[in-house]
Amino acid sequence: MEFSQWLVASRSCVEAALREALSERCPIVSSGAGRRGDSILREAMAYAVLNGGKRVRALLAIAAGEAVGANASWCAQVGAAIECVHAFSLVHDDMPCMDDDALRRGQPTVHVTYGEAQALLVGDALQTIGFELVADLDAPSDRVVRLVRSMARATGLKGMAGGQAVDIEAVGQTMGQTDLESMHALKTGALILSAVEMGAICGDPPAFEMTALERFARCIGLAFQVADDILDVSADAATLGKTPGKDAAANKPTFVALLGLTGAQDYARGLHQEALDALTPLGERASRLGDLARMLVQRSH
Amino acid sequence: MEFSQWLVASRSCVEAALREALSERCPIVSSGAGRRGDSILREAMAYAVLNGGKRVRALLAIAAGEAVGANASWCAQVGAAIECVHAFSLVHDDMPCMDDDALRRGQPTVHVTYGEAQALLVGDALQTIGFELVADLDAPSDRVVRLVRSMARATGLKGMAGGQAVDIEAVGQTMGQTDLESMHALKTGALILSAVEMGAICGDPPAFEMTALERFARCIGLAFQVADDILDVSADAATLGKTPGKDAAANKPTFVALLGLTGAQDYARGLHQEALDALTPLGERASRLGDLARMLVQRSH
Repeated sequence: MEFSQWLVASRSCVEAALREALSERCPIVSSGAGRRGDSILREAMAYAVLNGGKRVRALLAIAAGEAVGANASWCAQVGAAIECVHAFSLVHDDMPCMDDDALRRGQPTVHVTYGEAQALLVGDALQTIGFELVADLDAPSDRVVRLVRSMARATGLKGMAGGQAVDIEAVGQTMGQTDLESMHALKTGALILSAVEMGAICGDPPAFEMTALERFARCIGLAFQVADDILDVSADAATLGKTPGKDAAANKPTFVALLGLTGAQDYARGLHQEALDALTPLGERASRLGDLARMLVQRSH
Repeated sequence: MEFSQWLVASRSCVEAALREALSERCPIVSSGAGRRGDSILREAMAYAVLNGGKRVRALLAIAAGEAVGANASWCAQVGAAIECVHAFSLVHDDMPCMDDDALRRGQPTVHVTYGEAQALLVGDALQTIGFELVADLDAPSDRVVRLVRSMARATGLKGMAGGQAVDIEAVGQTMGQTDLESMHALKTGALILSAVEMGAICGDPPAFEMTALERFARCIGLAFQVADDILDVSADAATLGKTPGKDAAANKPTFVALLGLTGAQDYARGLHQEALDALTPLGERASRLGDLARMLVQRSH
């Protein structure tokens, strides 16, 4: 199968899992005079998630699963769970008290469309549904527990939330490359690492394969952020689907600010190569991960 | 053991589990010039949780566990997890875009002390740590999975978040008793039900005991809310530890508005009796649950 066909097929599995999570699990309960708030919340959750996202994290979970021979439907559900957690972080990140962004993937953000109170609940409930999707997996319990642990570590204080907290306090501060990398390892790297790890847990591989996959995930997580910083200065809003130049305007530290545009591009290429090298022990089965790495580093949006 | 001694001992186990969750699991990582945001986040999480709360939900989990002979340390950890989820909901609820409350348990709310952005992250990360505490339980995996499922159902769209969404849209609307009860069954009832259920899952009781405990939990969850509405009109800020009269001022539907003060008091007493009746099949082992029911319905703050 061509990579482009694999992308279409894999995304379609993830979208199906997400649609089921947000409809089957969340029936519209209201009718009659006036609309009940939980019906609005359900709609707003679907608005936040089913918006044509690239599903990078879910694709990484599926490809990591393929690399270790995991059950494909478990990986798709795990991928959907991670996308819910990712979407939750975007909804809260866009709120006025955080980045105050009005545009996301070319559409008005959730708080613009549904109000801040609903946006707050949308994020909260999307995190929950992420854990629910994992807990409801039809897999051996010990593996489900490992999956929940991995996702929780990646999402909380020692992962995404911790990284966002560092980011908040870093505005206007000088940050060296080590600090910047350590912030991004938490803020975006932890969930990308967990996506790869969770796909792999579905297949329960030997330790050396897990170690190789984790090394790959760390490199690609960082490369992904460097590419993001490059896009923030080089793309326009139409291509990007969100407001460009925000980081520079907000006086946030970026890899482009630290290394220059060419330096950042070289750095991304080096990390890409290191990620590919990490996959060597897995052989041909890891080829989709290699394809994804290329797509992430060379993406234009 | 006297009930008052049991309360002190049980709360002390929960506080210990919470302190461990917020220190051991979340080391302060920053030092040197300037304070890193994740260190501030950790402190703010502790501020939100270790604030002298009554730990009603954790006590219900522990007492339900005792009623079915569960491992006491599992129940304490499960209780701590539920308290983290409860605290997360309070932090987000107090934010300006929700109830905009400046006072909680007699102290400035999290967003007043740490700012809105950190408060948002505090709630997010407390939800996560709740799931992490359950996933890290040293119990059989199948039981851990059931616990995660129960907590996720109670927290998300078909539980607490859904109830809060109904509440948001209900402001200024007429609501009959059925609608009001259905809203509270989601908003506060679901987590109280889950607390009892999770304590019971730790002991894996036969179905008829689980059914009895669930009936008890539904009655006491509703009685708890009726008592809350009574306190909102009859207590002062010093006794309550939060701003009283907010619901009436916000034109929110309450049981007192629907039934009158005396009617609401009668209703709470009837629910209390129904809760005690539900415990009959469990015999003497359920006496702590009976004690807790009395405390919750008769509480003055």
